[in-house]
Amino acid sequence: MNIKGFLGSAVSAGIKYKGRADLGLIFSAAPSVAAAVFTQNEVKAAPVIAGIRRLKDGPPYVRAILVNSGNANACTGPQGLADVEAAKSMTASALGVNPEDILIASTGVIGRHMPMGRIRDAIPALSAGLNEYGLDDVARSMLTTDTVEKKATRQIEINGAAVKIAGMAKGAGMIGPRLGPPQATMLAFILTDAAMEPAFAQKALSHAAGETFNRIIIDGDTSTNDTVFFLANGLAGNTKISGGGPGETFLLALKGLMQELAVQIVADGEGVTKIVTVTVSGARSPEEADAMARTIAASPLVKTAFFGNDPNWGRVLAAAGRAGFSLDQNLMDIAINGIEIVKNGQGLGDEAEARAKKIMLGKRYELRLDVGLGGARASILTSDLSMDYVRINADYRT
Amino acid sequence: MNIKGFLGSAVSAGIKYKGRADLGLIFSAAPSVAAAVFTQNEVKAAPVIAGIRRLKDGPPYVRAILVNSGNANACTGPQGLADVEAAKSMTASALGVNPEDILIASTGVIGRHMPMGRIRDAIPALSAGLNEYGLDDVARSMLTTDTVEKKATRQIEINGAAVKIAGMAKGAGMIGPRLGPPQATMLAFILTDAAMEPAFAQKALSHAAGETFNRIIIDGDTSTNDTVFFLANGLAGNTKISGGGPGETFLLALKGLMQELAVQIVADGEGVTKIVTVTVSGARSPEEADAMARTIAASPLVKTAFFGNDPNWGRVLAAAGRAGFSLDQNLMDIAINGIEIVKNGQGLGDEAEARAKKIMLGKRYELRLDVGLGGARASILTSDLSMDYVRINADYRT
Repeated sequence: MNIKGFLGSAVSAGIKYKGRADLGLIFSAAPSVAAAVFTQNEVKAAPVIAGIRRLKDGPPYVRAILVNSGNANACTGPQGLADVEAAKSMTASALGVNPEDILIASTGVIGRHMPMGRIRDAIPALSAGLNEYGLDDVARSMLTTDTVEKKATRQIEINGAAVKIAGMAKGAGMIGPRLGPPQATMLAFILTDAAMEPAFAQKALSHAAGETFNRIIIDGDTSTNDTVFFLANGLAGNTKISGGGPGETFLLALKGLMQELAVQIVADGEGVTKIVTVTVSGARSPEEADAMARTIAASPLVKTAFFGNDPNWGRVLAAAGRAGFSLDQNLMDIAINGIEIVKNGQGLGDEAEARAKKIMLGKRYELRLDVGLGGARASILTSDLSMDYVRINADYRT
Repeated sequence: MNIKGFLGSAVSAGIKYKGRADLGLIFSAAPSVAAAVFTQNEVKAAPVIAGIRRLKDGPPYVRAILVNSGNANACTGPQGLADVEAAKSMTASALGVNPEDILIASTGVIGRHMPMGRIRDAIPALSAGLNEYGLDDVARSMLTTDTVEKKATRQIEINGAAVKIAGMAKGAGMIGPRLGPPQATMLAFILTDAAMEPAFAQKALSHAAGETFNRIIIDGDTSTNDTVFFLANGLAGNTKISGGGPGETFLLALKGLMQELAVQIVADGEGVTKIVTVTVSGARSPEEADAMARTIAASPLVKTAFFGNDPNWGRVLAAAGRAGFSLDQNLMDIAINGIEIVKNGQGLGDEAEARAKKIMLGKRYELRLDVGLGGARASILTSDLSMDYVRINADYRT
């Protein structure tokens, strides 16, 4: 993965993991328009608090992103915020830019102070290692319980100029977005060489995050550290995008890329063996459809049925029934990849279920619930709940 | 377990399980005042729909409860309701009472029609088997994934008369109450020989359910079949309870008995290895405290940390932070059985966590989060999330 004007580098700083890269750096050869979305959790990590302030108060241009895995720098008090400032200063010195040009993202264990000595020791080699093929190394360095790096690229044309977008993401657990833009559900960095207005950059990112990262659930827990950074360095030389047709073209590509990353995150979720699109249709409003889809997608009983390849539709109806909206149980239909197993609230029998079960033995399918009350719909991309999820999370820290 | 004027019986009808009792009958020698609370799920099983109507429209006296395990009679349409009426008629004939004297409760798989032929065949032996020591058999016949029957008794004095209360319950999964009285979270039958006014009976049951069964979470899913029946046959000969001091005395005993059953349900929850009281204090209102305690208690990451004996308090703070209320993360304290591990939003170090971990190696403890904003508190009794929970629920139907 490479893109004009962006360099990457990663080193092993020994933050938590031994013998693998855990500190990454992305550097833009030119000042980049910056946009971001962050977790809406009331408990926010130090780099998130600092990032929100920086994007709100500072100029909309940055030069670099420093990211570490193994330590979230969350629930670390004033020391945590001071450590973020120190990391910005160290990185800025090494790169010959200003501290306010550096964005910071962290992921890992909550409640431990950052080993700043190790980060200080690692930054010279990190900075020296910057190269145009180094973005793949950054993508690897940000992983925690992830098993593979998540990457996606797009090439489009904006007013005759070739424009590229490249994205990387991490996230395998504590994945459960909260409504209310701007927001995000994991770490992701989206880089583009397109030229654009800062206001367009933020609007496009917020909108695309709401349609993609904001619509996945692995375990329904929301992280203290979720951060999506978007950098546009303008080196493609296109007329600056501010909206209109070029804006639409760019947004479409951005959404496609972020959805591709979102699918990769769910597919690599902790212990995940199934990727299921839960669609609720026939609702009175998009909000009701969304809330029902989220309740179904987060239900332990529904998720264990996915794991067991069991078309146990009673659990789906029961989850929808506790989402907080009035329903008519005699109007509810359920289908798996179009194979109907429930009609008007009643099962269609063993043969239908046997056909659905065959679909469920595969890795990816859609479960659709129509509640028969209106025309609104919503989808959530989710996973099963496996014994490995429990094993991973009972062992994660110890 | 025996109590004046109540007889019990159970038989193996072959509804789903082979070679074990799955059909139970409780008969009261005298007309009993009846009260009930039911699931608030929008999707309700046929016996729940019938029971709500019966309690609302019929006289407040009944004679018997018929209960089956293995089939929930939920999502079974008009046939399901007709099957409830048929079961009432069959049972009434055998007992020589009216169909409206019979209450029905079911638990088991959703979406299958009741095997009415098997129930018809079983009722003569069931009725003939009624005896004063048979309540224990009923308690066993209503189990599904439960591993032990749940029973509790109380003896009190009301205006000089000795009064007894006996309760039985089942419930191991799909345990996650919904707010809003009257409601319940499992099957439970509470029998007493006390004499009381019908209005007092319903008020006492609703209140006690709200303080006990309504405050437990195993997986956070809410059943379509939750039912608590309360029968008072008056044979103790006490002055009828209508409130006041005798009402307080009775209510206290009832709450204690129901809490004892609630603890037994959590302890026997699917795959449960830990029983944890999650208390949130220092909230601005009881509603906020309650919502935060429920979010923590239902969080997969918190529950897997309980399973792993890991004082992973970052997950607790993160769960509280997504409960929907503004918080100051620098005011949050966490203690496990009084051992503080977080103060003002920051960890107190490895030694404190090591002491907390020793507590967590036990089977039962309290996790307290103080959010430092006010004087309100709430507690939820919950469990861990183990690999066995996943195994049980991936295999339950197939």
